[in-house]
Amino acid sequence: MQRQKLLINGERLKNELETFANFGRTENNGVTRLSLSSEDILVRDYFCKCCEDLGMKVKVDDMGSIYATLEGKNKRPPIVIGSHLDTVKNGGKFDGVLGVVAGLEIVRTLVENKIKPETSITIVNFTNEEGARFEPSMMASGVLSGKFSKSDMIKSTDQNGETFSEALKKSGYDGAIENRLTEASCFLELHIEQGPILESENLSIGIVDCVLGMVCYELEVTGESDHAGTTPMSMRKDALFEANHLISTIRKKVGILDGELVYTLGRLSVLPNIHTVIPNKVVFSFEARHKDSMIIQKVEEIIRSLPNSSIEGCEVKIRKLWDRNTVWFNPDLCELLEQSTDTLGYSYKRMVSGAGHDAQFLASFVPSAMVFVPSVNGKSHCEVEESSWEDCEKGVNVLLETTLMMMSEE
Amino acid sequence: MQRQKLLINGERLKNELETFANFGRTENNGVTRLSLSSEDILVRDYFCKCCEDLGMKVKVDDMGSIYATLEGKNKRPPIVIGSHLDTVKNGGKFDGVLGVVAGLEIVRTLVENKIKPETSITIVNFTNEEGARFEPSMMASGVLSGKFSKSDMIKSTDQNGETFSEALKKSGYDGAIENRLTEASCFLELHIEQGPILESENLSIGIVDCVLGMVCYELEVTGESDHAGTTPMSMRKDALFEANHLISTIRKKVGILDGELVYTLGRLSVLPNIHTVIPNKVVFSFEARHKDSMIIQKVEEIIRSLPNSSIEGCEVKIRKLWDRNTVWFNPDLCELLEQSTDTLGYSYKRMVSGAGHDAQFLASFVPSAMVFVPSVNGKSHCEVEESSWEDCEKGVNVLLETTLMMMSEE
Repeated sequence: MQRQKLLINGERLKNELETFANFGRTENNGVTRLSLSSEDILVRDYFCKCCEDLGMKVKVDDMGSIYATLEGKNKRPPIVIGSHLDTVKNGGKFDGVLGVVAGLEIVRTLVENKIKPETSITIVNFTNEEGARFEPSMMASGVLSGKFSKSDMIKSTDQNGETFSEALKKSGYDGAIENRLTEASCFLELHIEQGPILESENLSIGIVDCVLGMVCYELEVTGESDHAGTTPMSMRKDALFEANHLISTIRKKVGILDGELVYTLGRLSVLPNIHTVIPNKVVFSFEARHKDSMIIQKVEEIIRSLPNSSIEGCEVKIRKLWDRNTVWFNPDLCELLEQSTDTLGYSYKRMVSGAGHDAQFLASFVPSAMVFVPSVNGKSHCEVEESSWEDCEKGVNVLLETTLMMMSEE
Repeated sequence: MQRQKLLINGERLKNELETFANFGRTENNGVTRLSLSSEDILVRDYFCKCCEDLGMKVKVDDMGSIYATLEGKNKRPPIVIGSHLDTVKNGGKFDGVLGVVAGLEIVRTLVENKIKPETSITIVNFTNEEGARFEPSMMASGVLSGKFSKSDMIKSTDQNGETFSEALKKSGYDGAIENRLTEASCFLELHIEQGPILESENLSIGIVDCVLGMVCYELEVTGESDHAGTTPMSMRKDALFEANHLISTIRKKVGILDGELVYTLGRLSVLPNIHTVIPNKVVFSFEARHKDSMIIQKVEEIIRSLPNSSIEGCEVKIRKLWDRNTVWFNPDLCELLEQSTDTLGYSYKRMVSGAGHDAQFLASFVPSAMVFVPSVNGKSHCEVEESSWEDCEKGVNVLLETTLMMMSEE
């Protein structure tokens, strides 16, 4: 039997996203809602009330993550939809919250249409995805998946010295370990792309195959600090010039490896950083991301084979900070998302995620997948972060359609 | 009539330099004696007492510079010998103080030998040469020569918000404008080289022809901050990569202009300086020094013709901060210093000063010259700053010999 096509209410979705943005809205129409801050606590209270008003049962786990469940007819593990409600400082009103409000709008659409789902639907808000107040990012989903140790995580302190543990207790969202998510039919995360690809290709939906593996290095160049006026060029050991050669070499060699490779030197500091003194130390970060571990391996070979003591006579120390493997999402689930998008007639592409997301940790124990909607100018983590209401609506419809397809599969 | 060769007492010079180093001596045997700090006030008190004990008359001008005069037989303007007693934070025990203690040792040698000089000898301590507490450097000699405006200078504040004017009043060294040095037969400044040249050529004495002219620019590169994981390389405007190209171009083009040219990019900052964010701004300083203004002009042409918007699509703003012309010392005085050095049988060379000194301002209104002694490893402005006692002794002997030659000239 052909079921009738069900669509969400785009106007209601937009209004709800604007309402959520009121919790921590900045002067420039962005949002600052650091994890477990007063703004975060208020938005959590509001979110819980919305869920309870829809007849959902709300539980909180020992990392403060919230699960709101709409009971289904069968006893299968829930279809879990969600993301995070925290933001970075002066962030936007889409990153994270879109994936949570998507769940809310899907449940509203079902309730409004008096549809009791076959399978339970759980909306999740993961605590501290951003890591902006307490490092690291994706903290709660990391603990949930066993990637991070809870005892380490709860000791993480904010810049005022308050621990995550203290902040969690104060928030009132210090729940029970037995409320943790342990099983799910699937986990679906709708998120803004945070990059320029969908927009540049004029597409509405990205179906995410994987979160890119990456590697992060720190390079430390040590020269000698001497007087800028009195030291002949031939007698200098200028750490900045040495670093400049290294950066040129990296750009030349890493730059030709693969068109999909991204690499960045985001952090660089110079010591003593005085205009009349030759720099004796330059420290910089290097990170590279690619889905193919062979490409990452080639990047690492280039970095490790950089000359130790080069043209300027400085010493170069190369230290690997960390790496992570590419996380592939569930192929069947991606296929189902693609079918749903097709059914709805939206333009889309299969793509990769260069940014990390809670879904990458969830993927280790439940079938997981992600949907992206375009970011205007590719911007995120800033007040001008923007996605069109129309694309947001399409993204939520893809999740609703997928949810309905999954339920009708049995 | 051939006068008898008079030499200073090297042991006494060494002991006095060590005594002066006690005022602000650091744990690592360096000196921190910021201008008008308690350590500076104590060393000034000690210096004045030493001068008065030698029968000298001490005066203080309105910028706190101290002049101690040993009366001569004739009425000619004094032979002025000196430098400064202030140091940078964690500086050494030679920079500045050597030139003042040199004067003390010369007067002691004369007094000890019961020689009343033909011409008066004035030892000077210029206030705030380093500019380490109150910017700019060479403040008092700058006011004395009319290069700096006194009313601007006395408003300069330290990092605690105290003005130079307040610190001067508190110090007890707030003297009278009529005590300013207005005329002199000559000004002689003995200083450590603060560079590696004399040591590398195994010479004891440098006779300084000039203080190098220089030019200072600031370059500001503006790109766009995007997510390091989600932005394809082709869609980036990476300010650090753009800066990297600029620095390579500067090094390539400026580097071949002249073997004596020195140039430095001492200060460089990256924004937002986060390893997961593409840098949107890099600001760096560029300074170059050379005695020949034509070479400096060529440097400026290269800097000004750097591409405004280049390979990475960033905007480049180039701003000249300031410049100064080469200051040539009095040729006759340099000749006399050379003769004295020759007479004493010391190894020496004519050289330039890449660093600024009080003498460069004095040169605008009295015949001035400088003598350098070698710096071990070329180091200065740091705790390991070192010059051999033997070289210091030779340097003071050159000044004594020159002083005696000047007096016998009439």
